[in-house]
Amino acid sequence: MNKIKRTPIVILNFKTYLESTGKNALKLAIASELVAEETGVNMVVAPQSPDIYSISNEVKIPVFAQHVDAVNSGGHTGSTLVECVEEAGAVGSLINHSEQRMKLADIDVVVKKTMEKNMVSVLCTNNIETSAAAATLKPDFVAIEPPELIGSGIPVSKAEPEIVEGTVDIIHEINPKIGVLCGAGISTGDDMKAALDLGAEGVLLASGIILAEDPKEALLNLVSKI
Amino acid sequence: MNKIKRTPIVILNFKTYLESTGKNALKLAIASELVAEETGVNMVVAPQSPDIYSISNEVKIPVFAQHVDAVNSGGHTGSTLVECVEEAGAVGSLINHSEQRMKLADIDVVVKKTMEKNMVSVLCTNNIETSAAAATLKPDFVAIEPPELIGSGIPVSKAEPEIVEGTVDIIHEINPKIGVLCGAGISTGDDMKAALDLGAEGVLLASGIILAEDPKEALLNLVSKI
Amino acid sequence: MNKIKRTPIVILNFKTYLESTGKNALKLAIASELVAEETGVNMVVAPQSPDIYSISNEVKIPVFAQHVDAVNSGGHTGSTLVECVEEAGAVGSLINHSEQRMKLADIDVVVKKTMEKNMVSVLCTNNIETSAAAATLKPDFVAIEPPELIGSGIPVSKAEPEIVEGTVDIIHEINPKIGVLCGAGISTGDDMKAALDLGAEGVLLASGIILAEDPKEALLNLVSKI
Amino acid sequence: MNKIKRTPIVILNFKTYLESTGKNALKLAIASELVAEETGVNMVVAPQSPDIYSISNEVKIPVFAQHVDAVNSGGHTGSTLVECVEEAGAVGSLINHSEQRMKLADIDVVVKKTMEKNMVSVLCTNNIETSAAAATLKPDFVAIEPPELIGSGIPVSKAEPEIVEGTVDIIHEINPKIGVLCGAGISTGDDMKAALDLGAEGVLLASGIILAEDPKEALLNLVSKI
Repeated sequence: MNKIKRTPIVILNFKTYLESTGKNALKLAIASELVAEETGVNMVVAPQSPDIYSISNEVKIPVFAQHVDAVNSGGHTGSTLVECVEEAGAVGSLINHSEQRMKLADIDVVVKKTMEKNMVSVLCTNNIETSAAAATLKPDFVAIEPPELIGSGIPVSKAEPEIVEGTVDIIHEINPKIGVLCGAGISTGDDMKAALDLGAEGVLLASGIILAEDPKEALLNLVSKI
Repeated sequence: MNKIKRTPIVILNFKTYLESTGKNALKLAIASELVAEETGVNMVVAPQSPDIYSISNEVKIPVFAQHVDAVNSGGHTGSTLVECVEEAGAVGSLINHSEQRMKLADIDVVVKKTMEKNMVSVLCTNNIETSAAAATLKPDFVAIEPPELIGSGIPVSKAEPEIVEGTVDIIHEINPKIGVLCGAGISTGDDMKAALDLGAEGVLLASGIILAEDPKEALLNLVSKI
Repeated sequence: MNKIKRTPIVILNFKTYLESTGKNALKLAIASELVAEETGVNMVVAPQSPDIYSISNEVKIPVFAQHVDAVNSGGHTGSTLVECVEEAGAVGSLINHSEQRMKLADIDVVVKKTMEKNMVSVLCTNNIETSAAAATLKPDFVAIEPPELIGSGIPVSKAEPEIVEGTVDIIHEINPKIGVLCGAGISTGDDMKAALDLGAEGVLLASGIILAEDPKEALLNLVSKI
Repeated sequence: MNKIKRTPIVILNFKTYLESTGKNALKLAIASELVAEETGVNMVVAPQSPDIYSISNEVKIPVFAQHVDAVNSGGHTGSTLVECVEEAGAVGSLINHSEQRMKLADIDVVVKKTMEKNMVSVLCTNNIETSAAAATLKPDFVAIEPPELIGSGIPVSKAEPEIVEGTVDIIHEINPKIGVLCGAGISTGDDMKAALDLGAEGVLLASGIILAEDPKEALLNLVSKI
């Protein structure tokens, strides 16, 4: 897979915080780009869909959508079309985030649609079992995030290392080409190092950076031990 | 209400057609603006959310979102935040379109949120009963669209005039400040004239224009008899 | 409306507690029937749909469904068909409970379907605005339950009396034939008396009775001051 | 697995047809039982949840639910609780039927809940990819039903044999203990024989039998060539 540099990858999910909306989103994307340039870490930003266009025109790091719908072009008012986020500048998408869970059949559709477009698919899961199911659908990455730790400040890589290791093992058994990311509670350099030591190729995170007093400093701290 | 010129109004819902995505969306918005300038009709465009920013920076006619979610800022990955479409340039939104039906409690939330932001709310309904319910929630407009006629090419204003009239009557009885739009199957000057004659202040339409060989001509035809 | 005795009405929503499932549901229904016989209060029970048949064959008080889907007979695997709960013995249904919110268009369908079957419709709402919308759809009852008080033990009739009064006023203005019930946090005789004093014709409640050490005693207490 | 006789299995999904509701459901279950007795085929019936109790008290063949929700006991008005259908007499459940698709995370929850209760889980899928994903979740059976053939009268076992074979192969590669059923368009003895010849252990069907003039004859025909 040559769609994206692989290791280590940091995906910053902007969610729907005001701190990462509109002009604030643009600032955060620029800060992320600076961190990428200064550290060589593969930074990816995932803003809300109305912000994809302005951000992808301003920064050179990869921009992902937070979600795309399992619809083809046509009469689907209000849905998020893969082709539309792509033309706006997205080169990948989160899929099935814990705040936007999808039906199994729809996940299959969306992974295939992103694959056809040569976009990067990051399929989010909540435990080892659903991670195995996810791996059979052949996304580029599976991001394991135990829901009880999301936004908790308790890093999954320390609180539940066996979930990260178990996910890495079963996914690589099913398909060694799929990268594993880990999320939930990650915010410090130690958290990220622990994730990589467990076999993850990177992290997916949000509030720990977005709500930090100085997001750029928080990002620099995050990648300081890798 | 001085948020938008009232009469007659034409809202062009871009849906998720490729003919109205990305660069094509921009072209269609520019054509709509030309028609507004040439005819004085109040044209509004409702593109997909990733296209709001580029379109609202290019044209002066009002740009609406197709949908916003009933969420406040925070952790709602993949949701469409009112504040985000507003900052991208939207000055209103469709709500509860037949292809994106919402829960009653969520419609209430979204109408209130658009009202707080001084954005125009266009609440879509499917019959006289739900139009009455919609009117109690005090949106700026109710757009009645019998689902069986959407995309049919059979204009509601001719096929079921009693639904348009009945909707106008009950809505004005509940709240005379609410404007009534009508949609479903509208595409010609006769259709639009029939709608206005029945008491509607405008129309909501999509495929009849978007998929026309020459959308600008189709729009000019649409507004030719008012 | 002669489908059900009107005043005062107590609807006990069994929800999905184990304490009100299967044999426990039957016991609770029998206790409710005893309270109806001893006090003359119009008790209604709303068990889970698999329990409707056995309960309605055992007790004479009205049995309601907790939810019905907006589908007609046909290919809708896993949906709850009005005709099926009716034949199992239900004479009414809760609609749009806060734990099972429905789309506006679907609420309209379901209210009409219950009306056709001469079943009692109890449409749940969360505030004055959605109660007004609900009233335009002509259900037999609107049950107002501020979501933040459900299961809280804080009775809406005492904590937010203005919501109950406001709901009664607006509903009777729209359609005086519609009865108003109130729910959320109701469990004692004082709570119920306060509800009736505010113009409600009855209450909708659940955990305060179901999880009580002695549900029959709790019900007797509930109706002791009316 | 000794929860259910394995081969060959015929699951009759009653869906929400009036022909398979209430008293009609009971008649159909009795006819199915007669066919099981006369032919030795392992017949299973899946009625709507309000009909589970009366049917499971009347017939000895296994009764399944059509759907259960991914909720634990508690405050989930209108949801279908595993414990409730179990106490009503269900010994298994369809999961993720094409008319009731579920989120991946919820499928995982429901498969585990049925396993804990020693109930039979039949996880429905739409293609080879989602069947592989399903297999990793360890249900007792995966039932492959290409949606475009459901209710079509065109049997999947003849129209798309490679999908049935491909599903059997990938599922047995992932977990040989999982049985494969096939559905969609199955109604005759030839269709069922073709399914078994392709490696399926049985079939899942509905309208071809339910809407037949004589459902018992239709069932006898179905199992006539095995």
